[in-house]
Amino acid sequence: MEFFNVITPDGFVELLAGFPRLAGEAVPLDGALGRRLAGEVAAREDLPEGARSTVDGYAVRAEDTFGASDAIPALLKLAPAVTMGTVPGFKLAPGHAAPIPTGGFLPQGADAVVMVEYANPAGAGAIEVSRPVTLRTNVLGRGEDARAGEALLGAGKLLRAQEIGFLAALGVAEVEAFRRPRVAIVSSGDEVVPVGREPRPGQVRDANGHALAALVRDAGGEPVAFDIVPDDAAALDRTLRAALDAADVVAISGGSSVGARDLMASAVAALPGAEVLAHGVAIRPGKPTLLGRCGGGAGHAVFGLPGHPVSALVVAQVFLAPFLRHLQGAPLRKGPEGREVAAALASSLHSTIGLEEYVRVRLERADVGPGGARGDGETPTAHPVWGKSGMLSTLVRADGVVRVPMNAEGLARGAAVPVILY
Amino acid sequence: MEFFNVITPDGFVELLAGFPRLAGEAVPLDGALGRRLAGEVAAREDLPEGARSTVDGYAVRAEDTFGASDAIPALLKLAPAVTMGTVPGFKLAPGHAAPIPTGGFLPQGADAVVMVEYANPAGAGAIEVSRPVTLRTNVLGRGEDARAGEALLGAGKLLRAQEIGFLAALGVAEVEAFRRPRVAIVSSGDEVVPVGREPRPGQVRDANGHALAALVRDAGGEPVAFDIVPDDAAALDRTLRAALDAADVVAISGGSSVGARDLMASAVAALPGAEVLAHGVAIRPGKPTLLGRCGGGAGHAVFGLPGHPVSALVVAQVFLAPFLRHLQGAPLRKGPEGREVAAALASSLHSTIGLEEYVRVRLERADVGPGGARGDGETPTAHPVWGKSGMLSTLVRADGVVRVPMNAEGLARGAAVPVILY
Repeated sequence: MEFFNVITPDGFVELLAGFPRLAGEAVPLDGALGRRLAGEVAAREDLPEGARSTVDGYAVRAEDTFGASDAIPALLKLAPAVTMGTVPGFKLAPGHAAPIPTGGFLPQGADAVVMVEYANPAGAGAIEVSRPVTLRTNVLGRGEDARAGEALLGAGKLLRAQEIGFLAALGVAEVEAFRRPRVAIVSSGDEVVPVGREPRPGQVRDANGHALAALVRDAGGEPVAFDIVPDDAAALDRTLRAALDAADVVAISGGSSVGARDLMASAVAALPGAEVLAHGVAIRPGKPTLLGRCGGGAGHAVFGLPGHPVSALVVAQVFLAPFLRHLQGAPLRKGPEGREVAAALASSLHSTIGLEEYVRVRLERADVGPGGARGDGETPTAHPVWGKSGMLSTLVRADGVVRVPMNAEGLARGAAVPVILY
Repeated sequence: MEFFNVITPDGFVELLAGFPRLAGEAVPLDGALGRRLAGEVAAREDLPEGARSTVDGYAVRAEDTFGASDAIPALLKLAPAVTMGTVPGFKLAPGHAAPIPTGGFLPQGADAVVMVEYANPAGAGAIEVSRPVTLRTNVLGRGEDARAGEALLGAGKLLRAQEIGFLAALGVAEVEAFRRPRVAIVSSGDEVVPVGREPRPGQVRDANGHALAALVRDAGGEPVAFDIVPDDAAALDRTLRAALDAADVVAISGGSSVGARDLMASAVAALPGAEVLAHGVAIRPGKPTLLGRCGGGAGHAVFGLPGHPVSALVVAQVFLAPFLRHLQGAPLRKGPEGREVAAALASSLHSTIGLEEYVRVRLERADVGPGGARGDGETPTAHPVWGKSGMLSTLVRADGVVRVPMNAEGLARGAAVPVILY
């Protein structure tokens, strides 16, 4: 079986967009970081619930300060001090000022706050105000941060630390977020053995299972590990069925050789309700990639990834991780996900027209790396990391990748390229 | 107590750099994503353990193909086929070719592989090779990916999916990674109540505790939640001591008013072996920030964060999160951590000389957001998100921040600025 249905990378992403998002589930606020809201959240109350001071100072009636200056200060009588955690029990009478701390609730009658810097003691029980304040100066009004009934956060909104804090302030202790996808991770191949086992001559350890599980976790999914499957039709069928039962998405890697690849394609095609959506995608590395839809309803996505760890990881970064984020409410965009930095190519790259290539590069500039790209300073240079197909060390030595478009024969030395750090 | 020891943001970072990294601990490979190595990892064996084919084809002696062309192909006799998972039991004799799948181990005697595309059947038991191959063509040699004894990954290396895969391939099932810091999260203030409780008039819910816990998790730390502490010297002292016992780092927020701030500073200063390293930092928002070192040995860092949730979060993003990453082996760099995009300011910003300001901005361009900045397309515009001090909604409406340097009076409308997305 050759690639009967090779599609473009963008076409592959369109196929992925056809899979609907997962359902929502209740998530406690403290577990909601990085999740996306499955529905809109509305405020159930005003925030703040009453007018609060934003400074240390004196709550006043603004009109009592009109015209005040250093030369002719306004003289105000001291009212009782406002304390934190209570609403003042008194009403501020005209001509009075109540000491108030930052965050304190204004007493009835007060409509502005004079900063402590502009008030001076003026004998017993009085202060002089040397600057006028206008209505609501230094006051956060009731409902100014959020109004009861108002839509606060829309569906799909990513919950960062600030959203968590905002929701906490509003008493929202639980949110409805998109469920995390469970992803079955299957490594196949007669030569593959678990990491803990000493390989006999001719055998290799399962790199894909662990790398893919890490990538799935990074994308918010829950990996479900399956035992390694030999290149055997019946064993593949059994495992794929169990994987479909256990997970929302299946990621099976293997099939570096044509024979093993055919076996995997046949096994996917033979699954209940199976439809092979793509058999081959025009990227390098990673061409021998398969996408199937299996099972009832909207269907489970089955990714058949190459057996080569390098190819498997690139395909997973370009398609699988963004897809998992899509299932959780994120906009779907071709990966890899990562910061981008502008760089100059250190050597020219040759590329094949008709294939979108992902070239691993090392950045040369001391202060740039996966940990943080900074906008200041000179443009770093991107050095392609060469190495034979299947060399995992090339991925490890790379800081990121350069994407060479399908229609390009290559990129010239010195060309300005965006590098995706991952 | 006013700010006796206001320092610059960069000075604050230098103080943080004085705290040593945490110790290393053994971490299983599947839990090591995002962690950093506490020590160098060396390969215990060669990868691959023998020469492997990188293509589907025929293992040959390269010299047998020299001079081969379409017109005058090299005729080779078929040797037994190589199967996956075993090392061929035969030695390849001169003039022979052994069918080999991608990933298969070469038989003894073979030193190159002819791609299947350049080999044609030539009667029973023979093939014709139409292209010469040189030594090691299409072969990944023993130890070419990693050599036994070679240092693979250095101390401090961040473990991404690719490093996990590489280590798995080498049989490394466990690594020594920097320990995650335990961070005690304490909210203080007479007015603060837990999120689950209905605030009485004058009370507010604890936004800081939840937002900070989320930020700590995001930075790889483990938040340890403490009960809310009232503005009371004895209660603060008790809680801070318990927090120091329970955690590596203490982050206490509160003290929006001068009075509460003084209480907190005194409480920190009174801790055993306490040294107040900074009392006030020249940033806005967030000036009333305190840094202490307490306890024996290298000491625990105690962050006294402002009570205003907006200020507390900005300070935590600028200093606390990078500090937690530093404890785990990352280079220490002032935050916030996040992708940077170049943007044009939509309106001019006024700023105070002597304060580094963090201005929240909203980006206007459909395809840019926290989920992913793309290098292609036009420059987005950055719209400052205005709002009174303490409005959490300003953080929620913002896509990122613009950092206005200490020595700037402001930034002009249209100025090119890097926006840190978070």
